[in-house]
Amino acid sequence: MDSHLMDALVKTLGKANVLNTPEDLAVYSYDGTFVEGQPDVVVLPETTEQVSQIVRLAADARMAIVPRGMGSGLAAGSVPIPTGGIILCLTRMNHILEIDTENTTVRAEAGVVTADLQTAVEKIGLFYPPDPSSIRHSTIGGNVACNAGGPRCLKYGVTGDYVLGLTVVLADGRILKTGGKVIKDVTGYDLNGLFTGSEGTLGVVTEVLLRLITKPRYTRTALAEFLSLSGASQTVNAILKAGIVPASLELMDQTAIMCIEEAMHLGLQTDVEASLIIETDGTDQQTVTREVDTAARICLDCGARSVKMAQNEAERSNLWKARRSVSPALARKAPNKLGEDITVPRSAIPEVVQRLRSISAKYDLPVVIFGHAGDGNLHPNILFDKRQPEQWAKAEQMVAEIFGASLAVGGTLSGEHGVGVLKRPYLERALGSLSIEIQRNIKHALDPLNILNPGKMFPD
Amino acid sequence: MDSHLMDALVKTLGKANVLNTPEDLAVYSYDGTFVEGQPDVVVLPETTEQVSQIVRLAADARMAIVPRGMGSGLAAGSVPIPTGGIILCLTRMNHILEIDTENTTVRAEAGVVTADLQTAVEKIGLFYPPDPSSIRHSTIGGNVACNAGGPRCLKYGVTGDYVLGLTVVLADGRILKTGGKVIKDVTGYDLNGLFTGSEGTLGVVTEVLLRLITKPRYTRTALAEFLSLSGASQTVNAILKAGIVPASLELMDQTAIMCIEEAMHLGLQTDVEASLIIETDGTDQQTVTREVDTAARICLDCGARSVKMAQNEAERSNLWKARRSVSPALARKAPNKLGEDITVPRSAIPEVVQRLRSISAKYDLPVVIFGHAGDGNLHPNILFDKRQPEQWAKAEQMVAEIFGASLAVGGTLSGEHGVGVLKRPYLERALGSLSIEIQRNIKHALDPLNILNPGKMFPD
Repeated sequence: MDSHLMDALVKTLGKANVLNTPEDLAVYSYDGTFVEGQPDVVVLPETTEQVSQIVRLAADARMAIVPRGMGSGLAAGSVPIPTGGIILCLTRMNHILEIDTENTTVRAEAGVVTADLQTAVEKIGLFYPPDPSSIRHSTIGGNVACNAGGPRCLKYGVTGDYVLGLTVVLADGRILKTGGKVIKDVTGYDLNGLFTGSEGTLGVVTEVLLRLITKPRYTRTALAEFLSLSGASQTVNAILKAGIVPASLELMDQTAIMCIEEAMHLGLQTDVEASLIIETDGTDQQTVTREVDTAARICLDCGARSVKMAQNEAERSNLWKARRSVSPALARKAPNKLGEDITVPRSAIPEVVQRLRSISAKYDLPVVIFGHAGDGNLHPNILFDKRQPEQWAKAEQMVAEIFGASLAVGGTLSGEHGVGVLKRPYLERALGSLSIEIQRNIKHALDPLNILNPGKMFPD
Repeated sequence: MDSHLMDALVKTLGKANVLNTPEDLAVYSYDGTFVEGQPDVVVLPETTEQVSQIVRLAADARMAIVPRGMGSGLAAGSVPIPTGGIILCLTRMNHILEIDTENTTVRAEAGVVTADLQTAVEKIGLFYPPDPSSIRHSTIGGNVACNAGGPRCLKYGVTGDYVLGLTVVLADGRILKTGGKVIKDVTGYDLNGLFTGSEGTLGVVTEVLLRLITKPRYTRTALAEFLSLSGASQTVNAILKAGIVPASLELMDQTAIMCIEEAMHLGLQTDVEASLIIETDGTDQQTVTREVDTAARICLDCGARSVKMAQNEAERSNLWKARRSVSPALARKAPNKLGEDITVPRSAIPEVVQRLRSISAKYDLPVVIFGHAGDGNLHPNILFDKRQPEQWAKAEQMVAEIFGASLAVGGTLSGEHGVGVLKRPYLERALGSLSIEIQRNIKHALDPLNILNPGKMFPD
């Protein structure tokens, strides 16, 4: 790497915030996927002004900037591909700057861990609903970059539904502020919406202003067990059609349940084909109870073998422990897993589940199904052993067929993980060439030198 | 106008769908504002394919295309300014194409009147919440172009929150389809969000795919009367802080109430400084009642003189008749009115109300205040006589001061009407030059010839 640029980075940030030993570079070569790619240097800015200076230096040197939070992404969006360039890691910008109790907003630096932000606002009776499974380690900036979802997004919407304003360092280093503490705003184009979910390709988000709501006071949680997976998936629509919008409506198939039970010993019945976790919440205890009771009745009407209501916080916590441990629990079943993130129209859940099972049978590798069924957002996970080349080859073919299954029923590639590196080959099939052309034009308009997270999202 | 282009338009659309008599051109020279501007020709396409051909012809001839629905806009967004060009009126594309009861979506052509769309989906128990006051005549395409709001948007969100997919004719005539019947989608940039609210400057929306919800079964509506306007505006935050999100939380000041009562004789008390209309809704009767009762108690705690609960549908209907007739009722008070659409952080409502009163006093012209207080979205209306030049001059200065007041408290220019022609002079003050530069770059990326609704949104 150019020593002149290196000196300039050290001068801007101080020696301690510029990493380039082989060990450091190796550490920043990964995210939550199999992909690896080594940067030339890692920088750890502490202010928006420093980010601006780094981007200016990178633009002058035509170096790639790869923004990164905690590296928990599941699409390799923060791995340097092609290798090289500058990893701009925002984890030292981790301050909550303001909680406005009158307007119920929070302003925070991009590197704040989302769970920390949630805890801080809940302490004073406010609530930030989006809850990606990575919540304890992913950052709010990363959540914005991917427009992250989570179980609670059925009722409450995704990250983007809470973004009121952003501080963004643009591709030439200038600092743009979007939005403000207003709920409705049609003054110009929706830049908040454009930057949210743009995976660091249009600008580096350094600060976020988020809308909060009042914390729901009551929660009721139920586990419904079904002898048939299609019965469980049909139930999802039946509950929503009854006018009940649970906070969460989560599906787990038999393999998922078995893996969890083997790992956690929570007392889950493993002889059912699927379970739904249903949670209602709100400010009125009777309503919350009535809603979960109605949902339970619908489950039984749709063929559930049993519905168990969590009787206290410990039982509720156990159910969520089960749901949240699906991913780690799968690791006991096979050395590797490849988790996808398709979203389909809700009515197509039974059909896509059938297609996923056929893909699993065709390649003779397990595909575990779980996810946010209320949103039609499923996480089919292929279990395999990467050390066996034929299994790895099969897994890659299966991913292509899983995307094919989703697109065939009117679905899409990703509900909450983003495109990153991994879904680029499928993007044209999902969106068509015209949509990609338009998006490339927007990218070029905002980043003409293509220095912001190049090699991501768009096909080569 | 070029006779070659004229012939081509007639060939594409048939003679009956191409208007260019002086009378026709005059009719299409206005919207809901004072602005006028005459097109060269008006075309009335019936299909997306025809729209595509018209845009191709316009692009070849470098003619401006001004998309238009029913012309009810309040920012002159569909008036040809500069004059000339092609008015592309979408009102003949008024078919509802599909209501999907499983996925609760509706697909409709852009020219469908929003109230017609609502009626159609409500017939089968579904619900499209956004309810701009123009709902009985404005089109869904126009609502998308302006990202329209309405009273119910406090609980349910604005038009853009329901857009799942769009068919858009781009500036070169190509047809882009965005989105689909999936609730969550992070596959590429948020093009739905970018086109929504772009006021016809980035593409011509010809078809919309909208998310629906289950129709709330119960509604309770209350009228709270306050001796002090600031008491009423403080009450808004108190209700929301209690965790109650009414469907609507509407504010009317004394002048508005007096105008309505004079015009409609609904029995409103005119000796109060302000009223709030509070409506709760939902699927559970007891909850809906409990919520409106709690809101009523909070009103009394905050100094309301009285709270009247609508006892039946007729009484409820009367309250909404009152609210919806504010605008027409003001016409009795003065020959002209100039209605603005500022949005401020909720906590700033009392201060901005004070500032609006000062502006009214300074210029000695009435400013009536009403609007969607729960969203911080106020419609200050200046009452004046346009025939008196000094009043017209005052009104224009007052508009500038009203925007200044909004920006001073962290607010913005428009919550639901858009920028159009009228707010262009204030855009840079509201957004800053960098934001405008970025937005111009996006505009240029999608419409390099600047033929789509030129002269709108951006300052000259």
